[in-house]
Amino acid sequence: MPIFRNVKVTLAYDGSGFNGWQIQPGLRTVQGVLEDALGKTLGDIPRIVASGRTDIGVHALGQVLNIHIGSTIPAYGLLRGLNSILPDDIAIRSVEDVALEFHARYMAKSKIYVYSVDTFDTPSPFLRRYSLHVRHKLDIPAMAEAAGFMVGEHDFSSFMGAGSLVKSTKRMIIRSSVIEKGCRIYYVVEGSGFLRHMVRNIVGTLLLIGKGKLSPYDIKGILDAKDRSKAGPTAPPQGLYLVGVKY
Amino acid sequence: MPIFRNVKVTLAYDGSGFNGWQIQPGLRTVQGVLEDALGKTLGDIPRIVASGRTDIGVHALGQVLNIHIGSTIPAYGLLRGLNSILPDDIAIRSVEDVALEFHARYMAKSKIYVYSVDTFDTPSPFLRRYSLHVRHKLDIPAMAEAAGFMVGEHDFSSFMGAGSLVKSTKRMIIRSSVIEKGCRIYYVVEGSGFLRHMVRNIVGTLLLIGKGKLSPYDIKGILDAKDRSKAGPTAPPQGLYLVGVKY
Repeated sequence: MPIFRNVKVTLAYDGSGFNGWQIQPGLRTVQGVLEDALGKTLGDIPRIVASGRTDIGVHALGQVLNIHIGSTIPAYGLLRGLNSILPDDIAIRSVEDVALEFHARYMAKSKIYVYSVDTFDTPSPFLRRYSLHVRHKLDIPAMAEAAGFMVGEHDFSSFMGAGSLVKSTKRMIIRSSVIEKGCRIYYVVEGSGFLRHMVRNIVGTLLLIGKGKLSPYDIKGILDAKDRSKAGPTAPPQGLYLVGVKY
Repeated sequence: MPIFRNVKVTLAYDGSGFNGWQIQPGLRTVQGVLEDALGKTLGDIPRIVASGRTDIGVHALGQVLNIHIGSTIPAYGLLRGLNSILPDDIAIRSVEDVALEFHARYMAKSKIYVYSVDTFDTPSPFLRRYSLHVRHKLDIPAMAEAAGFMVGEHDFSSFMGAGSLVKSTKRMIIRSSVIEKGCRIYYVVEGSGFLRHMVRNIVGTLLLIGKGKLSPYDIKGILDAKDRSKAGPTAPPQGLYLVGVKY
């Protein structure tokens, strides 16, 4: 069938049951499960272009992808059909026809992530896959101040995971804030793009500040150093959510 | 060691990874996992008296049990020790020394359950183990009115699961209400005690009312019939939470 449609798909998934986004032989990945469902719905498997990958254990509320297809099934039928086939840890939120030029990765203007931390006295059995439990009481104003220093265009080499090849380590951060709701703390960050493990490395550093091991004013020096070893550890994946992608 | 202490333990668990409460050979149950942890902490396994059992897939925020022990480990040490051993889908919330006569089942004055229903357009991957997704929009005022008719002392035979042997099928319900928060709906019920599957059978019936298949005024006839076949189906376990026990 000739390919004449470009379809934008927004989806949510619980990352705890997947070996990350990218297809890998013999492993359950979000892309692999999606390809199976698309193959069954469309008759053949289109190439999936996602806004980006998510790591093992990372969740999505609004991951975006696009597929070029020849099927004449209307968007709403695709939504219903895919959701009826997909396992219950993936949900298609919306399907819409878009211009043929639309590209989920190249045309992303910004991405929004949230990282969830909780400080309940005892770790909640219900949050173990969905939040990072921290025993310390955290200095939230200090963390919020430090988070603010991320806003703007910076070289984030100090927050980049090892082993990634990128042309530039500069990224523009539009929003970087800490929200406290009782014993739950959310780090919200929106940026033009993110380096490998960047959000989790920022969170690991903010937690050192929250525990008083670093000062908010250390952030500038960490950024300037362009040295991964100057920043905090990588926060674990289960607190991280890809909330949405803006185009 | 002589048994000279009676200790009351309050705990939370995510029921999705357990084959219910009661110990069963070869199956992972809450009681089985607790006995292991108590045995490791105390040196031998005390008899656990719980406020009641929970079924496969049912959660607890405030299950209560008591154990008679000889150990001199202070309550706070037991709390910390048990939580360090227990898997992360069980959390001890509190441990306190109580009078030797305290009995977690016989002395329970009331128990509080919450059942969670959601009506999001697409089922949330994050709620599949923690809420019942319903596609229909529900008539919440009708459900709330029907829920109110449960309050008082009634014979709940029509809401009792098959195969249970009880002296009396009468129970006193103190609170029975429906709370709506956006696309999430909670049925909250407090009573002197509950028959087998009683909360889930009430919820299954309230859902028929919410969908317009029964009227709130049918509740009286269903109660009077004392016939399980007159009430609605048993709602699935994953929406149910034992919230607390009052003494």
